[in-house]
Amino acid sequence: MSDEVLRWAPDADGDPALLTYTFGGAAPVATLRPGQVLSTWTLDCFGGRITSVDQLVSEVADPRYLNPQTGPFWVEGAAPGDTLAVHFLSVEPRYARGVSSTVPFFGALTATPRTAMLHPALPERTWVYELDLQERLVRYAARDTDFTAALPLDPMHGTVGVAPPLGEVRSSLTPGSWGGNMDTPEMRAGATCYLGVNVEGALLSLGDGHARQGEGETCGVAVETAMDTTLVVELVKGAPTAWPRIEDDAHLMTTGSSRPLEDAFRIAHQQMVLWVAELTGMSELDSYQFVTQVALTPVANVVDTDYTVVCKVPKRFLGDLDGTRGAYGGVHARLRSRG
Amino acid sequence: MSDEVLRWAPDADGDPALLTYTFGGAAPVATLRPGQVLSTWTLDCFGGRITSVDQLVSEVADPRYLNPQTGPFWVEGAAPGDTLAVHFLSVEPRYARGVSSTVPFFGALTATPRTAMLHPALPERTWVYELDLQERLVRYAARDTDFTAALPLDPMHGTVGVAPPLGEVRSSLTPGSWGGNMDTPEMRAGATCYLGVNVEGALLSLGDGHARQGEGETCGVAVETAMDTTLVVELVKGAPTAWPRIEDDAHLMTTGSSRPLEDAFRIAHQQMVLWVAELTGMSELDSYQFVTQVALTPVANVVDTDYTVVCKVPKRFLGDLDGTRGAYGGVHARLRSRG
Amino acid sequence: MSDEVLRWAPDADGDPALLTYTFGGAAPVATLRPGQVLSTWTLDCFGGRITSVDQLVSEVADPRYLNPQTGPFWVEGAAPGDTLAVHFLSVEPRYARGVSSTVPFFGALTATPRTAMLHPALPERTWVYELDLQERLVRYAARDTDFTAALPLDPMHGTVGVAPPLGEVRSSLTPGSWGGNMDTPEMRAGATCYLGVNVEGALLSLGDGHARQGEGETCGVAVETAMDTTLVVELVKGAPTAWPRIEDDAHLMTTGSSRPLEDAFRIAHQQMVLWVAELTGMSELDSYQFVTQVALTPVANVVDTDYTVVCKVPKRFLGDLDGTRGAYGGVHARLRSRG
Amino acid sequence: MSDEVLRWAPDADGDPALLTYTFGGAAPVATLRPGQVLSTWTLDCFGGRITSVDQLVSEVADPRYLNPQTGPFWVEGAAPGDTLAVHFLSVEPRYARGVSSTVPFFGALTATPRTAMLHPALPERTWVYELDLQERLVRYAARDTDFTAALPLDPMHGTVGVAPPLGEVRSSLTPGSWGGNMDTPEMRAGATCYLGVNVEGALLSLGDGHARQGEGETCGVAVETAMDTTLVVELVKGAPTAWPRIEDDAHLMTTGSSRPLEDAFRIAHQQMVLWVAELTGMSELDSYQFVTQVALTPVANVVDTDYTVVCKVPKRFLGDLDGTRGAYGGVHARLRSRG
Repeated sequence: MSDEVLRWAPDADGDPALLTYTFGGAAPVATLRPGQVLSTWTLDCFGGRITSVDQLVSEVADPRYLNPQTGPFWVEGAAPGDTLAVHFLSVEPRYARGVSSTVPFFGALTATPRTAMLHPALPERTWVYELDLQERLVRYAARDTDFTAALPLDPMHGTVGVAPPLGEVRSSLTPGSWGGNMDTPEMRAGATCYLGVNVEGALLSLGDGHARQGEGETCGVAVETAMDTTLVVELVKGAPTAWPRIEDDAHLMTTGSSRPLEDAFRIAHQQMVLWVAELTGMSELDSYQFVTQVALTPVANVVDTDYTVVCKVPKRFLGDLDGTRGAYGGVHARLRSRG
Repeated sequence: MSDEVLRWAPDADGDPALLTYTFGGAAPVATLRPGQVLSTWTLDCFGGRITSVDQLVSEVADPRYLNPQTGPFWVEGAAPGDTLAVHFLSVEPRYARGVSSTVPFFGALTATPRTAMLHPALPERTWVYELDLQERLVRYAARDTDFTAALPLDPMHGTVGVAPPLGEVRSSLTPGSWGGNMDTPEMRAGATCYLGVNVEGALLSLGDGHARQGEGETCGVAVETAMDTTLVVELVKGAPTAWPRIEDDAHLMTTGSSRPLEDAFRIAHQQMVLWVAELTGMSELDSYQFVTQVALTPVANVVDTDYTVVCKVPKRFLGDLDGTRGAYGGVHARLRSRG
Repeated sequence: MSDEVLRWAPDADGDPALLTYTFGGAAPVATLRPGQVLSTWTLDCFGGRITSVDQLVSEVADPRYLNPQTGPFWVEGAAPGDTLAVHFLSVEPRYARGVSSTVPFFGALTATPRTAMLHPALPERTWVYELDLQERLVRYAARDTDFTAALPLDPMHGTVGVAPPLGEVRSSLTPGSWGGNMDTPEMRAGATCYLGVNVEGALLSLGDGHARQGEGETCGVAVETAMDTTLVVELVKGAPTAWPRIEDDAHLMTTGSSRPLEDAFRIAHQQMVLWVAELTGMSELDSYQFVTQVALTPVANVVDTDYTVVCKVPKRFLGDLDGTRGAYGGVHARLRSRG
Repeated sequence: MSDEVLRWAPDADGDPALLTYTFGGAAPVATLRPGQVLSTWTLDCFGGRITSVDQLVSEVADPRYLNPQTGPFWVEGAAPGDTLAVHFLSVEPRYARGVSSTVPFFGALTATPRTAMLHPALPERTWVYELDLQERLVRYAARDTDFTAALPLDPMHGTVGVAPPLGEVRSSLTPGSWGGNMDTPEMRAGATCYLGVNVEGALLSLGDGHARQGEGETCGVAVETAMDTTLVVELVKGAPTAWPRIEDDAHLMTTGSSRPLEDAFRIAHQQMVLWVAELTGMSELDSYQFVTQVALTPVANVVDTDYTVVCKVPKRFLGDLDGTRGAYGGVHARLRSRG
């Protein structure tokens, strides 16, 4: 363990081509030791180029440079077959502004390049949100009427992941077994994300901060914002993780990312059945029955190139998971105590 | 309005062939007037034939007689183009026992007749749950180990619906635009369900009581139980409803039932975008943006012949919806006051 | 066997509400004996109401009265668990005109009520085709330019089916295990369709004649035409058929209808693996391997409420299927000899 | 144009880790000039490691080294926005043996890592096929019975593609907009494949030879064989191609690869509607109608990580496409004349 904090910042003012837009395929920017705290920040998904309602994504944002990631960080000692635990100590909007938009042929209620149709695109429009960091509110204002609403601030990262397996390099717009653009609001401060390591050093990256989002992220764009983030990593050696998992104080969570959406559901719930069986000693069939009666199943996104479903099980139903009886030997509780 | 209560009970001891297993296609059993309270009960989805862990569904339950419905009730004055509001005053397990099971080729994590494969069926097994109606608990006991868990009682109806459009008659195992087997835990006491009327008299039926279920109802069978239910109906004349909606004190909810699951998501969220626009006066595009940031999206079921997704929006974000400014002219608040 | 021909005609000039629009739920119009020839005709899917390019479906056709079926016919002796063999002796356009159209929110390349989006409908338009019954051609003429094309006439029925199981009544717009609106061009003269019987009398109906269609029926509407049809039925007692199958002189064919489309594929190919194993004596695993290398897999439709895939296996690869060694005891060859 | 032939061979006897298993992410092995003929060969998808029915894929084949590709070849002058035309002059099995197998959790009729379930894997088994290159036959022999069948030899490449866009590197097991593992039998000698260029030099690779396969490649493994292949490439400058297209003497073909399978259908058919409109001058709506009546729609694969559908339109229906009026300025006819 190390108490030294690694401070690292992306070069937001430099050539956008030099930022990181993939999981895998990029050289590490720095090295993190297990137990070490990382203090960094992430650009918003548009690289900060949208600042007013008069700007449109298709005019301002280069499609090659969407969703820049901070990283990748080489995690000392990480090897294929390990699990990387990433605990978010703090996730806070860097500025008092969030932006959102409709993007042509992107979103759940429009034709897309993969759900290809003959419709013209829906209208493109930008919304700017005031973030009230004192009151912890996100202020929505309609564009066509004077409707307004004050929504709870709930900062999170849409994207966190490692290098994929099989030598693949995947766009930061895509979620998968390596993590990536899962867009679940569960990736907030206080949560620990478990990612299976596929390559030496793991190559952790993160980005896509949201001041808040609805489940499903219907139009494809949340309240996007640059984010100041502090996290601490830990390694669980020799413990593979097939699909990203999340743990907070109240829940165990599994994720699945695929299409159709029922396959994302299947992955998340199969993983939860196996995980609950492992932690409680129940048989697989008993665990299947148990998960059927206790799971919460929020959709994470139905807009990225693959869709994500989260399965949540309250830890209080699982009996005594204290200390090393907890998931991955109790790493969440240990990292939580650092916060 | 009428204060008279209609009491009606299914003939649980008679010929199971005489019970109701479809939406549409059955003669009404009684007439309900708008404003009238109905006090009734519903058999569990196995018609009460499973009472011990030694019984298997495939041996005890005739596949023609699964999921019997109480009804249909003819609603006086209901005509195509109206909306039927069904408010649940009370939903209480009739006995202190619930049952569940795995059923061959049924469930989310198994091959099924539609997701057809070459695997043999998963093992069939029955679980019996003690329902502690005082402590409001559902007691789970593993079959293969001594693991137990006490889960919150949360009684609900898996199935509520009316006769479908286009002259169709649909099995009570299926959800759709007429309601049916949506299997969402939101269908609990205190909720109002809005169903579009397709035929004269609407032909309301309900059943499939669950002492509780997880979202998604992963193995396809919740904690099944007979249910004592009191409800009150109201008619909203000339207000069509394309897909079932639910309102409780805190949320507006839309549902979609289809396959693949992303189409169920699309239906529910398109309907919510339209509903929020109508109630707030926002433009469709502003509503799309707003719903993107506020929707909760629990999966209801991924096991019936079509899958169901629920979209929930907190009413407190929508401004002043008091009195007749509320959904369907404020019918939920009025019916709620009857409880 | 009977040599007597049953001649029956729908009342095309009467009240359209009196025609048949469902599988199940309609009283039989006549009785057919096994071995008996039926000579009849079917209205086109618009009930004959579109006769010029100036008419639009949404203006002329009542949505309750789309896709009228001829029938249902009570088949003497048919009982649940039997298979009804329907052999098409002749399928010929009744008039020298076919029509097609785009229909708002219907088709594979548009948002639909189930793939719900926020797009306005694609433009609605009607095309009229000249059918040259001598030259066996279908003459296409573009509406916006002078492009024309002469396509081979290939008459077929989009819809053929029996009453569904579980007491269901299904719209004639929908395909399923009972047959219905499968929209495969394989349902042409010379083919035998095998349908599992679900109710006494089977209740056979047919309709939706197409002068020709592409596979997938992309925009949802083929070259629609009234059809003069002669067929002969046979019963295979005690031989259930889970999903519709088709046999012609060259191929065995299975169908699956579901969503997503891969589930329709799975059904058709699982059924073919089982059928080939049964006919050849191969093990299921050997049959799986064999079907992998020989199957042809045309998509039938991706536009109806469920989608249909056909799996075809050339009979010449299956060894000696002569006489009673053939499928269903060689019924196709026997009925074919009637033609 | 160049008459010089580039001869290049993979190092089949070296370290399998040094072969190419991705599209993108590998250094070019040689340079091809437009108009130049390439004479090469490709290993089978198991790298030649399966030679008898006693070998199982899971025991013999390293999952990191499946589906090795020959290439990538740098195509001189190729730049993003161009189209690379790859015309197959000759595709011939290199040996007289093909192999196939079932692979645990891989295939259309089994649970997979993405259609995740709780079933154990189907049995793993290997089949060896004799290829009779004189009689042009592929000889199937059942493992469990003495059933045999002689099937037509129809050699093809399951995999051909270029580097993907957005800096991605994709496994050779996956199909997509860059080509890759489409597994369509249309990729045979005499066909021209059109691939949109995403990076300088295009980086063409190919592999996965099949002596034949059924459409859909149901169990996931065709009659796999090393292949001697001769091809010629051409560049169409400034003509982007969104998804791979194929042309042979009789048909124009478009492909789409996605999940669910209906999205693969949608891509292929939207692309065909646009292509036919461009070549004939028809409006998009007229082309939509026309494609509806003429398209053939074979499924290519339902087994890889994404699924592929092909849309075929007979060229004879499209009017005069001779000379430069043909697709991409008539490049297929010109390359065909080299054969």
